[in-house]
Amino acid sequence: MYDVLVVGGGPAGISAAIYLQRFKLKVIVIAKDFGALGQSTHIENYYGFEQPLTGKQLIESGLAQAKRLGVLVNFGEEVLAINGSEPFIVKTDKAEYQAKVVLLATGMSRPSLRVKGFTTLQGKGVSFCGICDGFLYRNKRIGLVGSGEFMLEELDVLKNFSKNITIFTNGEPLKVKVNEYAVITEPIIELLGQEMLLGLKTSNNQFDLDALFIAARTPTASDFAVRMGAFVTPKNEIEVNHLFATNVPGLYAAGDCTGGLLQIAKAVRDGAEASLAINKYLKPKTS
Amino acid sequence: MYDVLVVGGGPAGISAAIYLQRFKLKVIVIAKDFGALGQSTHIENYYGFEQPLTGKQLIESGLAQAKRLGVLVNFGEEVLAINGSEPFIVKTDKAEYQAKVVLLATGMSRPSLRVKGFTTLQGKGVSFCGICDGFLYRNKRIGLVGSGEFMLEELDVLKNFSKNITIFTNGEPLKVKVNEYAVITEPIIELLGQEMLLGLKTSNNQFDLDALFIAARTPTASDFAVRMGAFVTPKNEIEVNHLFATNVPGLYAAGDCTGGLLQIAKAVRDGAEASLAINKYLKPKTS
Repeated sequence: MYDVLVVGGGPAGISAAIYLQRFKLKVIVIAKDFGALGQSTHIENYYGFEQPLTGKQLIESGLAQAKRLGVLVNFGEEVLAINGSEPFIVKTDKAEYQAKVVLLATGMSRPSLRVKGFTTLQGKGVSFCGICDGFLYRNKRIGLVGSGEFMLEELDVLKNFSKNITIFTNGEPLKVKVNEYAVITEPIIELLGQEMLLGLKTSNNQFDLDALFIAARTPTASDFAVRMGAFVTPKNEIEVNHLFATNVPGLYAAGDCTGGLLQIAKAVRDGAEASLAINKYLKPKTS
Repeated sequence: MYDVLVVGGGPAGISAAIYLQRFKLKVIVIAKDFGALGQSTHIENYYGFEQPLTGKQLIESGLAQAKRLGVLVNFGEEVLAINGSEPFIVKTDKAEYQAKVVLLATGMSRPSLRVKGFTTLQGKGVSFCGICDGFLYRNKRIGLVGSGEFMLEELDVLKNFSKNITIFTNGEPLKVKVNEYAVITEPIIELLGQEMLLGLKTSNNQFDLDALFIAARTPTASDFAVRMGAFVTPKNEIEVNHLFATNVPGLYAAGDCTGGLLQIAKAVRDGAEASLAINKYLKPKTS
């Protein structure tokens, strides 16, 4: 029986696990893979690192940090189902666990455009984060892929850097209202460019672009959460209170899967705050 | 004229400055010294660093990170007064600046006990952070110096690790209610021990201790804030809303000086969130 089972090995999950371990709770982290952050090629805005690093480097460093402090981390193991309540029964592709508390820290999934050029041009004009990379494309021609709330949030960031923004809904109907920007609803067929993004082809047109931002992320843990009876927002984010508790007793969530600012800084803080709340939950006050 | 002048070169201030710089705002950081964090000898719970580092190392790395990204950082310069409003006039011991927005990220000051042994025993049994170091003293004899709200918060953390806690108000009257713990109000005269803390002497007694936690911090920026008309809490923390704005238009605050969880993770996130709010404040929406 674990005190806390953390699903996710990124900034939120590992930050929480480090604190939980310090509180002498019995904690295990189950992490499937490097997640969306693992695809980042250039992290510069997370405090404390003089030189840029890749998402994979940061995650590996965090995993090593947790292990050094004694946290049990099962990397490469996938949670398939979570049932019951206090204790929760967590089934993975390798084993079954019992835990008094489950913390979902599963991040956001990044969409694949499934068009030619998408994979090779990531980090070469194709970006997933306006706050991180928008400044690179000041007054440049920016494409923004998305049709909903996330697109609108990215637009709000990107318009700080350029007025030349074209929205591509990639065949989806536009679900939000945008003014002053061209909206192309045709499906995207191909991204153009070898070393750097040069533009894209839709079914009927071609567009010259310096950057293409993908804004169609979805939280990856909401399926678990919904099946467990937890509330999620219309954007599919897991609803938590200021103590990072969902409406299901003993089920907590932190980091990108709860929405808000999709930045490492926020995920790390979420993990720390959630761990304190979980510690208080597991150790009722005696004085 | 700067867009934003940041007071403080620690995690909150530098995290904010990095983001502000990315938003192409004209930003300057004025930092007096390494602050309270600079005295930390062993940081293990800030996500992303496999090996422990000192507060000074982390701050230096953060300063270098900001400078590499183009942030103007004046280290070793002390802000003496902030006057006016939009633009603010900021006087330091070296110059005078104008800025549309001022972000206070000045942290907490650590008290000096001004008794023999205090300086040499820091990091050797004398600690300023229960969350950081409490786990080192599981079931050990813990002394806790303080008489108010901060002491109560530290007590709430430390009681997870040991039931053997003695509170020392160091001559102050006890301002809060505590149950189940011995409270010694005599002034502390001397800390005992060479390589490690062994105990302390008060005016009339001697106590054997394995650890002494100092919980008498005060926010260092509240003087500025108060003189500028900003609200502060009874604990002397600067009051900010969810956008990190004080009640004075254009005056923001982030990190430890605003209270809450006194951890690097929270300060870094505060800085990031504050920078987004400041960017929106300075660049009103056009669509």
